[in-house]
Amino acid sequence: MNERLKKQIQFIMEMDKLKHVFRQSRLLNYERHENSAEHSWHLAVIAMILSEYAEEELDILKVLKMVLIHDIVEIDAGDTFAYDEAGYDDKEQRENQAAERIFNMLPSDQAEKMWNLWREFEEQKTPEALYAASVDRLAPFLLNYYTEGYTWRLPGVTSAKVLKRMKVMEKSVPVIWELVQEIIEDSIKNGYLAD
Amino acid sequence: MNERLKKQIQFIMEMDKLKHVFRQSRLLNYERHENSAEHSWHLAVIAMILSEYAEEELDILKVLKMVLIHDIVEIDAGDTFAYDEAGYDDKEQRENQAAERIFNMLPSDQAEKMWNLWREFEEQKTPEALYAASVDRLAPFLLNYYTEGYTWRLPGVTSAKVLKRMKVMEKSVPVIWELVQEIIEDSIKNGYLAD
Repeated sequence: MNERLKKQIQFIMEMDKLKHVFRQSRLLNYERHENSAEHSWHLAVIAMILSEYAEEELDILKVLKMVLIHDIVEIDAGDTFAYDEAGYDDKEQRENQAAERIFNMLPSDQAEKMWNLWREFEEQKTPEALYAASVDRLAPFLLNYYTEGYTWRLPGVTSAKVLKRMKVMEKSVPVIWELVQEIIEDSIKNGYLAD
Repeated sequence: MNERLKKQIQFIMEMDKLKHVFRQSRLLNYERHENSAEHSWHLAVIAMILSEYAEEELDILKVLKMVLIHDIVEIDAGDTFAYDEAGYDDKEQRENQAAERIFNMLPSDQAEKMWNLWREFEEQKTPEALYAASVDRLAPFLLNYYTEGYTWRLPGVTSAKVLKRMKVMEKSVPVIWELVQEIIEDSIKNGYLAD
């Protein structure tokens, strides 16, 4: 096997580890927590289905690549719960270190592409990154709603914080932003989410 | 919520069930079987990484969409083990019924696109479908090799059958086909796979 292909295969096998990184979200049947690999798949499907609601024209191939790779750094850095303020303190540093090790397993041209995609996602400036971020927030939001606020019951989560986190949708996918606000109201009414 | 968006959200929530469909393949650390949602994610990443080896020019967006949705029918039809000959007898019928129910949860224009992608994948005629099929065979093949032939030890699996199943790679990704043949030889030598 040549050196290039060897690196690619090693990277591919490394990816298996994302199936062991668990998130706070619960699957709809409550059976277990969701892992970051299946979450990434779910996001990609959601991104395909809801792209018609994006305000700006999207390069959907770039969106799909972005959501597919956005959590790879969690193999080393773990998943940081969205409402864990202490966890966010060193999230960037942990994830940069992880990216350094993991992306650089690839041949350098592919490593660079991976870095660029991931940085673009993290910076949330381009239409694709904003749409990807919206979808990344929508997925656990819906899982939460349909599990009667499973992770919203964790300490420190309030409707104001959830609303703030969803706000990236306002410009990117305004129809979905409307929907999210309705669901938040309904969740407060049902006691899934603290007002 | 309008009718169209309602259907789309219901479809999105239905997708959560693919995280409960388990395949024969074991994760690399042997901890548990792989589910079809995380498998689909892994395929999409592999498809991104190895596309340079495709003999024909690919519409990589179509490839990604194909691998992302190719197993959705398993929500109803279950996963059919590649070397389960009895299971293959009614696989097509089971999966068509599943597609009928699941794809039609979407608005009709999106349902039709989903059908077309899935049919193209199943028919294995276009460069994209052949590449997607190659990747779909490579992923469990590598998992098997790196778990010392975990599912190859199941009754009825032989190196000739494995080789036959991998043969779709020969024209689509010849470099990977070479690699697969080397790995099969090595697996026979190591006792992971019956000659």
